[in-house]
Amino acid sequence: MIKENTGLEQKELSHLDAEGRIRMVDTSAKPITVRTAEASGFVKMAPETVAAIRDHRTPKGDPLETARLAGIMAAKRTAELIPLCHPLALSHADLQITLQDDGAQITSTASTSAQTGVEMEALTAVSVAALTLYDMCKAIDRRIEITDIRLERKIGGRSGEWHREKS
Amino acid sequence: MIKENTGLEQKELSHLDAEGRIRMVDTSAKPITVRTAEASGFVKMAPETVAAIRDHRTPKGDPLETARLAGIMAAKRTAELIPLCHPLALSHADLQITLQDDGAQITSTASTSAQTGVEMEALTAVSVAALTLYDMCKAIDRRIEITDIRLERKIGGRSGEWHREKS
Amino acid sequence: MIKENTGLEQKELSHLDAEGRIRMVDTSAKPITVRTAEASGFVKMAPETVAAIRDHRTPKGDPLETARLAGIMAAKRTAELIPLCHPLALSHADLQITLQDDGAQITSTASTSAQTGVEMEALTAVSVAALTLYDMCKAIDRRIEITDIRLERKIGGRSGEWHREKS
Amino acid sequence: MIKENTGLEQKELSHLDAEGRIRMVDTSAKPITVRTAEASGFVKMAPETVAAIRDHRTPKGDPLETARLAGIMAAKRTAELIPLCHPLALSHADLQITLQDDGAQITSTASTSAQTGVEMEALTAVSVAALTLYDMCKAIDRRIEITDIRLERKIGGRSGEWHREKS
Amino acid sequence: MIKENTGLEQKELSHLDAEGRIRMVDTSAKPITVRTAEASGFVKMAPETVAAIRDHRTPKGDPLETARLAGIMAAKRTAELIPLCHPLALSHADLQITLQDDGAQITSTASTSAQTGVEMEALTAVSVAALTLYDMCKAIDRRIEITDIRLERKIGGRSGEWHREKS
Amino acid sequence: MIKENTGLEQKELSHLDAEGRIRMVDTSAKPITVRTAEASGFVKMAPETVAAIRDHRTPKGDPLETARLAGIMAAKRTAELIPLCHPLALSHADLQITLQDDGAQITSTASTSAQTGVEMEALTAVSVAALTLYDMCKAIDRRIEITDIRLERKIGGRSGEWHREKS
Repeated sequence: MIKENTGLEQKELSHLDAEGRIRMVDTSAKPITVRTAEASGFVKMAPETVAAIRDHRTPKGDPLETARLAGIMAAKRTAELIPLCHPLALSHADLQITLQDDGAQITSTASTSAQTGVEMEALTAVSVAALTLYDMCKAIDRRIEITDIRLERKIGGRSGEWHREKS
Repeated sequence: MIKENTGLEQKELSHLDAEGRIRMVDTSAKPITVRTAEASGFVKMAPETVAAIRDHRTPKGDPLETARLAGIMAAKRTAELIPLCHPLALSHADLQITLQDDGAQITSTASTSAQTGVEMEALTAVSVAALTLYDMCKAIDRRIEITDIRLERKIGGRSGEWHREKS
Repeated sequence: MIKENTGLEQKELSHLDAEGRIRMVDTSAKPITVRTAEASGFVKMAPETVAAIRDHRTPKGDPLETARLAGIMAAKRTAELIPLCHPLALSHADLQITLQDDGAQITSTASTSAQTGVEMEALTAVSVAALTLYDMCKAIDRRIEITDIRLERKIGGRSGEWHREKS
Repeated sequence: MIKENTGLEQKELSHLDAEGRIRMVDTSAKPITVRTAEASGFVKMAPETVAAIRDHRTPKGDPLETARLAGIMAAKRTAELIPLCHPLALSHADLQITLQDDGAQITSTASTSAQTGVEMEALTAVSVAALTLYDMCKAIDRRIEITDIRLERKIGGRSGEWHREKS
Repeated sequence: MIKENTGLEQKELSHLDAEGRIRMVDTSAKPITVRTAEASGFVKMAPETVAAIRDHRTPKGDPLETARLAGIMAAKRTAELIPLCHPLALSHADLQITLQDDGAQITSTASTSAQTGVEMEALTAVSVAALTLYDMCKAIDRRIEITDIRLERKIGGRSGEWHREKS
Repeated sequence: MIKENTGLEQKELSHLDAEGRIRMVDTSAKPITVRTAEASGFVKMAPETVAAIRDHRTPKGDPLETARLAGIMAAKRTAELIPLCHPLALSHADLQITLQDDGAQITSTASTSAQTGVEMEALTAVSVAALTLYDMCKAIDRRIEITDIRLERKIGGRSGEWHREKS
């Protein structure tokens, strides 16, 4: 059931070579194409924590903006964090964070013109934005949970467009 | 309902000053104490993906070890990723990853002797280990989800020991 | 005329050894003390540019906050940028940015408990915050100038407290 | 009066979206062109400090070379420091530092083939070279000031060539 | 005797300008071509140390895999370490480590499509993999030596293919 | 024959846990002591290459100084490169490079007050200085070899002083 609208899933883990050793995929022969990826995640908070954030969204400093910036900056450093991820020159990274009564919904977009996709950049942006929200709120709520980090959409490259089925 | 066994939760977001500006907490006056934090998270996978990882846990290369190393290395760089997090000299970081039929359970521990806690280091380790698993498996399963990243336990510092209530 | 209220200036460049080679100062034998440094700088802008920033200080995103965060994050990485600077665990870094009719005044504070001072951290924070303001405004004003980056005050260490004379 | 010889200044801050949120500019659709930027700055020193540097420009170690190297290395890491700056593969970065009786004049050049300009790389190189000079001389002169950091010239991209008017 | 099968060695140090100042080579005018480099090195160990590593090559953790990963990750950060090295987007980096009775033989390959070669990336990968092996074995053998780090082969760019003569 | 003047070598690889998994050693319970390590290495060059370097040791730029600086800066970032290495605040790092007819001899010293030793910092400094020399000379000599990187001496910590036997 893991196939969806592309039908091109591989059977093998791409980061292991024929002898089972960990490897970086060789993208030397791939064409440079425009690629975009979208990801999302949720930071589950107590209502009091959401209220505290809402109270502090002032012109002088919005906790959500700090998390957005942290996510954008982390996207640029994805290849330093994920061992087998290719370095690439991001042409764009963006995050949206919207408060809900039970937490914060985070969505991200990352784009590049490269020989490899930007899924990891989009997912890393969401993860670090979520961690930053945790950091800023942990003094009032240590029970915050980061959940549902996932790829939503992927455009470009050999397999064309893929989007997650609505559940 | 966010208080648990410590009773010392603050009411205010610690990373905002009196005028609502984002700030780094000043720990200059805090004593240096031994601090430990434990965190956990789950990488939800299709059974076929779990099977593919199990097949590749060979002496020459185990995908779970790559994720563990990535998490340990990321823990050391937490203060570069989380804008208001204090740099500190980690004395220990460790991760355990155990495969289950529906994914991989990740737990982490981080320790230091410092003026500030290591919750963010433990949570960052889990997050980056989870992202690395995603990266290694994404060619066979783009629908993997990273969920339930949370602090499990925290020892040391002004508020003593805290552990998450079993739900 | 470079002596002020401490009278303890050295005669030799501390980063050159007896044979004239560049060196890192050896702080192994110095005691750990609390140290603080304050620095400042000014970003000179056209009045129209100041007006554009004022117009955008909305609850959803304040350019000055982005610059403040960039400065705080850069302070933590000072030893990576300045070749002979010692790595240290900052206990605090803060910046204030105030708009004036002809630009933005930036002041910073950095603190640590260490064997060496934090002047470079305070100065790096001001510099990177200023560069970030330049980056955010350069599409409307390429003629912005960054001026008057200087140390204002220094507390702790062998030479005690020093502050810049008012000119 | 901020227009000069290009006439293409925008009216809006490019790093804020329609709703006033901080954003990275999306360069995905821009063509790759050769781009160069030149920047300059001045490190104002007491004559005794300039003399001390002159005395130490020996074959075994020149403080100005250390500053030059620090600037070149920092140019390569600009996108890590400036939150909304695009990562790019610099093809060249260079600095010149010339001593004068009242300080050190720094000029930089940065080049790349990319979808975005290298102004920030040139300005970051000057800033970090200046900070490094401060660091190397601070034991003999804490009153050093870093001034007049500015863009001098910019070639390539949509707006063609721009150069700063002589004042 | 330093010429081999290319005959294109320069006479001058490329990283010094006409006046003897250190410089980064300007690659702006070079064409983008596919480039590959291979390097090797040897970690000389006591037989007992080799035996200890052999004993621990279990499915749960192989010291050689840790060293391989460290080498791959370091290759991606070469331009941060080597002052005058150009940043580039590696399309591939790989290492092989084979145990021998007297130590571990390391070989690496690095590839990119860029205006400059990847020799330094291949050599950095070998060096950091070797240092990581040292780190993992130093508790049982402080006398380990890292030797014979050298370029084996180089493909692409102006000078075409070069390979080291067998000695 | 791997024991020397301390007699305290362990039998087990310290970076593997009881189940054979890679781990970071937990130093939380170790006392903070002053620690120093010395390492060395050799860059084997053709006589013409040594001559070219000698020719360029001018007041305006000495290739050996660039390599020394690169080594010092790399020492500060050792824990980012070596996966299981503890981050620590170096109090000193220094390198000496002396030209010989057949290459360059590099020695390094690193010091800290910490719960763990600085062998890896000293060895990393030598390795990156050697790689930098390679980079600066590779246009005239691709056959340069980096050899004999080893620990010379180690002071402080549980096992007291250790120095390499002269061979």
